[in-house]
Amino acid sequence: MADQKIDVLISEVGPRDGLQSIDTILPLALKKAWISAEAAAGVREIEVGSFVPASLLPQLADTAEVVKHAKTIPGLTVAVLVPNLRGAEAAIAAGADKITLPVSASETHSLRNVRRTHDQMIAEARAISTLIASLPPGRRPHFEGSLSTAFGCTIEGAIPDAVLQDLAARLVEAGCAEVGLSDTSGYANPTQVRRLIRLVRGVVGDDRLTGLHLHNTRGLGLANALAGLEEGITTLDASLGGLGGCPFAPGASGNIVTEDLAFMLESMGLRTGIDLDALLSVRRQLAQWLPNEPVYGFTSEAGLPLGYVGPPQIVRFADALGG
Amino acid sequence: MADQKIDVLISEVGPRDGLQSIDTILPLALKKAWISAEAAAGVREIEVGSFVPASLLPQLADTAEVVKHAKTIPGLTVAVLVPNLRGAEAAIAAGADKITLPVSASETHSLRNVRRTHDQMIAEARAISTLIASLPPGRRPHFEGSLSTAFGCTIEGAIPDAVLQDLAARLVEAGCAEVGLSDTSGYANPTQVRRLIRLVRGVVGDDRLTGLHLHNTRGLGLANALAGLEEGITTLDASLGGLGGCPFAPGASGNIVTEDLAFMLESMGLRTGIDLDALLSVRRQLAQWLPNEPVYGFTSEAGLPLGYVGPPQIVRFADALGG
Repeated sequence: MADQKIDVLISEVGPRDGLQSIDTILPLALKKAWISAEAAAGVREIEVGSFVPASLLPQLADTAEVVKHAKTIPGLTVAVLVPNLRGAEAAIAAGADKITLPVSASETHSLRNVRRTHDQMIAEARAISTLIASLPPGRRPHFEGSLSTAFGCTIEGAIPDAVLQDLAARLVEAGCAEVGLSDTSGYANPTQVRRLIRLVRGVVGDDRLTGLHLHNTRGLGLANALAGLEEGITTLDASLGGLGGCPFAPGASGNIVTEDLAFMLESMGLRTGIDLDALLSVRRQLAQWLPNEPVYGFTSEAGLPLGYVGPPQIVRFADALGG
Repeated sequence: MADQKIDVLISEVGPRDGLQSIDTILPLALKKAWISAEAAAGVREIEVGSFVPASLLPQLADTAEVVKHAKTIPGLTVAVLVPNLRGAEAAIAAGADKITLPVSASETHSLRNVRRTHDQMIAEARAISTLIASLPPGRRPHFEGSLSTAFGCTIEGAIPDAVLQDLAARLVEAGCAEVGLSDTSGYANPTQVRRLIRLVRGVVGDDRLTGLHLHNTRGLGLANALAGLEEGITTLDASLGGLGGCPFAPGASGNIVTEDLAFMLESMGLRTGIDLDALLSVRRQLAQWLPNEPVYGFTSEAGLPLGYVGPPQIVRFADALGG
């Protein structure tokens, strides 16, 4: 299955972003089972954890072991988050395929979150890319700098365009293969999604911005995803069952919901490689493993439409988008 | 306020579609208060009820009185649903500004829902338009035929294009000023929204299809709305607090949520004429009036983004859509 061509890559971030937001510790064996089941359902990329000090985030203390397991799954891109060079060293030692360094566009947020200025974060990015460049070519992970709070910050409010342009340029100059845009606060709207993608691509080039990390805090997550697709975005982060929720909005998922996103894309004729029935089955398992944590999303309750057929084997991206 | 230009008309359908789906009877005085408060928040069109036999739908038995009240509100377009000529007669007697006749694209659904074939529904449409034509010019309500189950039916599944084309053509030929597309089942996806708008406009002309009635059953409601906007749709139905929910999907709103839609449009720079804070306040009132009925949506919990500013006074529609 993993050899079939896909149109859009759904990157599952639940084992990282979902789990880090809940109190219930999911045992290592269940993390492994979750990742295996979701990969078996056709998910091609999973962010399996974060290399942060265990004292700060006990839920993700076993990330190295999770990576080791995930690396045994054929065809799966194993992604991790790292806050700094030390995290990147651990990620590389564990064998991660993709490393994401979040850099908050809001410097206030950056200082509160990781106690680092923009200059310090760029220095981390440079140190990580230097480390990666020192590895044998076959062992170099893909390195992305993700601009968090890009669509606005709960502390600073709107982020000036010049700050985003400057940070994006500096991340690429520091050695990131790619920059991503992350709607940490759930502030994004479709017009802004289009505008900021064009803005940042104007600085770094089209091929260095291909992914979005969207939240559904105000219900606009899938509309924002659609706007991104129309700008040629090909990787979308999402979390199974919207696990983790949103601390600012009880009842709202934080990340967009993997199964709703997969249903939207597949029903539009865009291939994700995902078997929707199998994915919904993994969601049910996850809900059983975490009985005290709410899960979100709509497709799981409503089921697939009567007579639903997935995308054809060959589809023109522009046709699916009505372009 | 009602004189200001708007870009997109949000048509509130909660007092009809929301209330008809719940058991709690909302007293006439509160229906009036709801409609007045929402109009005061800037909503320009409200579907206030349905002229169906009171024995079938006790909740809406007072529609004539609700219309009478709503007609006292300056600048408000007072819309009602009618199932047949008899309903249209009552709507006209009450003074409704807009009459919508739902015609199910799925004939099986039509037979189960109103016990009428397509031919019989077209005959009703013709009788209603004949009645309207007999009125003095200033007293003729706008008459729309709404194609329900247009995006698929829970009994029949997919609806053939030819059926939609045929019904749309016959509704216009029977005298409807406009046809609408309604996602009764919550089956729609953005690609399909674009495709069916183009399909039906190809038959009836661009100016005779300007509105969509979308559901959020599978979470795609606002993404579908965005796709509609990109095709030039200018009227979107929505329900405050998503009142009424979706019987097929516990936890899912039926109609798209007015306040989330209004936030999306305004944050995109598209003017709706709606004061978001005032609208959220009406939602809180509604939730208090119906304490046993769940309400839905995200923006109400999350609040407006820090530093949020509404749309400018002058905006180019194409700019807001990134076209």
